Amino acid sequence: MEFWFSERQTKDVKFSIRVDKQIYSKESEFQRIDVFESPEFGRFLTLDGYMMLTEKDEFIYHEMITHIPMAVHPHVEKVLIIGAGDGGVIRELVQYPEIRHMDLVEIDDMVVEVCRKYLPKTACCLDDKRVHIHFEDGLKYIRRCKNEYDLIIVDSTDPFGPGEGLFTREFYGNCYKALKEDGIMVNQHESPFYEEDARACQRAHRNITETFPISRVYQAHIPTYPSGHWLFGFASKKYHPLKNLREKEWNDRGIQTRYYTTTLHKGAFYLPAYVEELLKNVEKEC
Amino acid sequence: MEFWFSERQTKDVKFSIRVDKQIYSKESEFQRIDVFESPEFGRFLTLDGYMMLTEKDEFIYHEMITHIPMAVHPHVEKVLIIGAGDGGVIRELVQYPEIRHMDLVEIDDMVVEVCRKYLPKTACCLDDKRVHIHFEDGLKYIRRCKNEYDLIIVDSTDPFGPGEGLFTREFYGNCYKALKEDGIMVNQHESPFYEEDARACQRAHRNITETFPISRVYQAHIPTYPSGHWLFGFASKKYHPLKNLREKEWNDRGIQTRYYTTTLHKGAFYLPAYVEELLKNVEKEC
Repeated sequence: MEFWFSERQTKDVKFSIRVDKQIYSKESEFQRIDVFESPEFGRFLTLDGYMMLTEKDEFIYHEMITHIPMAVHPHVEKVLIIGAGDGGVIRELVQYPEIRHMDLVEIDDMVVEVCRKYLPKTACCLDDKRVHIHFEDGLKYIRRCKNEYDLIIVDSTDPFGPGEGLFTREFYGNCYKALKEDGIMVNQHESPFYEEDARACQRAHRNITETFPISRVYQAHIPTYPSGHWLFGFASKKYHPLKNLREKEWNDRGIQTRYYTTTLHKGAFYLPAYVEELLKNVEKEC
Repeated sequence: MEFWFSERQTKDVKFSIRVDKQIYSKESEFQRIDVFESPEFGRFLTLDGYMMLTEKDEFIYHEMITHIPMAVHPHVEKVLIIGAGDGGVIRELVQYPEIRHMDLVEIDDMVVEVCRKYLPKTACCLDDKRVHIHFEDGLKYIRRCKNEYDLIIVDSTDPFGPGEGLFTREFYGNCYKALKEDGIMVNQHESPFYEEDARACQRAHRNITETFPISRVYQAHIPTYPSGHWLFGFASKKYHPLKNLREKEWNDRGIQTRYYTTTLHKGAFYLPAYVEELLKNVEKEC
């Protein structure tokens, strides 16, 4: 039997994964949730048919969205995570003993339930005592916060559907307000390669650059995301992602990683010429 | 009408591109050659059904295999290019006036003919007076060479079919012998992500490390190659790819690039932890 999951990465590009079986499929209040089992990638989660994570390559995304800011900020005690119902960011964060409190704000409780049940490698640490889960719209949650967090991680879906508001200037402005005076915000920032993704990327970068004094973009190789070339945004009130990298301190912790290293950290900010160009074009408008 | 080209990147992963029309298809003495026209990637070339290049992203591969060694070696006069019948490497090399002589050794004359006709953006500079094309097996050609080249670029296909011999210890040994005492060899090095590619990558790295005193691997984002995470090998008798990077000199040339920059050059050598591990495992055997 030929049984394939396919995602249209653009209307003219399709990425397909052979599937052993579909493990879960349901419509929540917000989106369609599916979990599949595959020979190449292990289990994988899709929302509305878009790839969210696979067991084989999720470590890349989760390490890069977490350890980059954690290796820069000297003392993170309180973290806000928006989206991230799969628990991957939490699994990375719990390795830092100085973190005292994590607020995870996920709009869709069914995502958390499904990941706990079917993706335990990702969701393994959601029961850590420091984690407080709020099933709420991140957009609304953040309006109430002021001068509260050292780090905000925006682990959103794409900038359409439920994740759309998490790419707006209003949202980034509220993140700024919710951060302490030396706070850092990191977000998933789409891909620079396909035209529509590149425009989303530019819009996000413009909105962040207008809000934060320090705004840099970094990259990773994520094979199951469109083009495999994925970007993240590093926005900050005080710390620079390279000049304030605490290389020795981070390495002394002995945290085990499979993608992130403090050397790779630096290279991740050295972008291809065409990506720098893409970002500079919108920086000029700010 | 739905008209798609699909490549099995592994037996369980398929990458598909919508096609407007098939422009060329013929069996040469060595392989099946196809050229397609597509809305997303423009024209693209496949050999035996495997993606070789697309007009949209070939600049990444060709810039990275060429400018990395050219920004390190202080004075390249004579270059040997093996494979590369599409002319992409030549297009990058002709921008260096100090290069006096380029030998392009391509086993399949039909590849050159097809690229000249259907991929003129890539093949544009094959008529440069310094370029000498030899339709011959690179494996045999190199056996005759001794202390002759400043730079060898191995732009091979994958390590099966016609390209297989270009990943062997014998071949790398002959490259070493063909290089001058401060020569550099660069080769396409497959991908670290899917298991079979990763093993090819390890074999190549072991064979190169056994042959050259300096052997480092660097990476690029190439969306149409399996996993999008592609590696290159930098092997050298004298120059180190980072310590001997001639940053100012290269930038003073004013060569226009869309992917390569001398900053990105450095980041390209900062590999993910799992890739470093993969390579270290075989370095120990050497």
